[in-house]
Amino acid sequence: MAHRTSYAQNKGALLRRLRRMEGQVRGLQQMVADDRYCLDIVQQTNALTAAAREVALIVLEDHLRGCVTDALKDDDGDAAIKEMVTVLGKTLRP
Amino acid sequence: MAHRTSYAQNKGALLRRLRRMEGQVRGLQQMVADDRYCLDIVQQTNALTAAAREVALIVLEDHLRGCVTDALKDDDGDAAIKEMVTVLGKTLRP
Amino acid sequence: MAHRTSYAQNKGALLRRLRRMEGQVRGLQQMVADDRYCLDIVQQTNALTAAAREVALIVLEDHLRGCVTDALKDDDGDAAIKEMVTVLGKTLRP
Amino acid sequence: MAHRTSYAQNKGALLRRLRRMEGQVRGLQQMVADDRYCLDIVQQTNALTAAAREVALIVLEDHLRGCVTDALKDDDGDAAIKEMVTVLGKTLRP
Repeated sequence: MAHRTSYAQNKGALLRRLRRMEGQVRGLQQMVADDRYCLDIVQQTNALTAAAREVALIVLEDHLRGCVTDALKDDDGDAAIKEMVTVLGKTLRP
Repeated sequence: MAHRTSYAQNKGALLRRLRRMEGQVRGLQQMVADDRYCLDIVQQTNALTAAAREVALIVLEDHLRGCVTDALKDDDGDAAIKEMVTVLGKTLRP
Repeated sequence: MAHRTSYAQNKGALLRRLRRMEGQVRGLQQMVADDRYCLDIVQQTNALTAAAREVALIVLEDHLRGCVTDALKDDDGDAAIKEMVTVLGKTLRP
Repeated sequence: MAHRTSYAQNKGALLRRLRRMEGQVRGLQQMVADDRYCLDIVQQTNALTAAAREVALIVLEDHLRGCVTDALKDDDGDAAIKEMVTVLGKTLRP
């Protein structure tokens, strides 16, 4: 399957989110370097995880709207859905 | 409750993990900038989430061994356990 | 949006999984009634959560193949994708 | 390590939650049997997952207050914490 990119119109928003996440990771480094309270660090990792999930959701939505929709039109939908569900499975499994 | 830090002996390991996570976030920025395939980006956010969970687990283990254990010795265990479970709840809820 | 059901061909497999999950929940009740070890109970809730996620994944895959694909053909894809991503968000958020 | 049970005082509450969860799983079976809308089924699996996580949290809190606290008093805390963190890791990993 040829791979296209579906998140072109959200590229700026995604980069902004990822730069904020870089700030969160650097903040975590500073917290550890400063011997900040354990549970505050855990909470901050929760915030980072939530931010990563939001990025994943935006890209998944764009992927559905773009790549998957196109594949369905080209009768290539089956492979595209299988592929997406495989990734979704890795994202969901607890 | 006075807040102490329990992860002193893992500080170096935590900082190394957090620097690797900073690399992962920068890698994600590059992937988006380079218009890389949607599902590869989702997979990379999964890897980042897993890394954040590992950091949380290390700090939680140290917290149990340090802060919570000390609080139990000082008969302050009840508050320490309640506090930790509250944070755990935010970490676990799907 | 008219709601159709997309999991017809997996109906038997889903019911079998859900019956196994009913057995898991009853097993958990028995474990608690029998004063079984705390962490064995936690592990068993993890197994149940994993089973629930598998059911969700099967239904989501069928939904993509059925409802969402049909909606895309009927130019109703935008609403169908938005709706699915909303549910996905609730499934993913940690 | 001798295994004791720490959730005695929450036994009734846990059993009530687990009976409600049995109702949720039976409800899911009925939904599938009745060809209910895919995303309603996914949402219901989310509710079940959340309920399973609540049960896990209650048992983990009791385990900390009981088994782990006792083990710390008996200088067996190290093994107890390691064991709990292993289970926690399986619960947390995405």
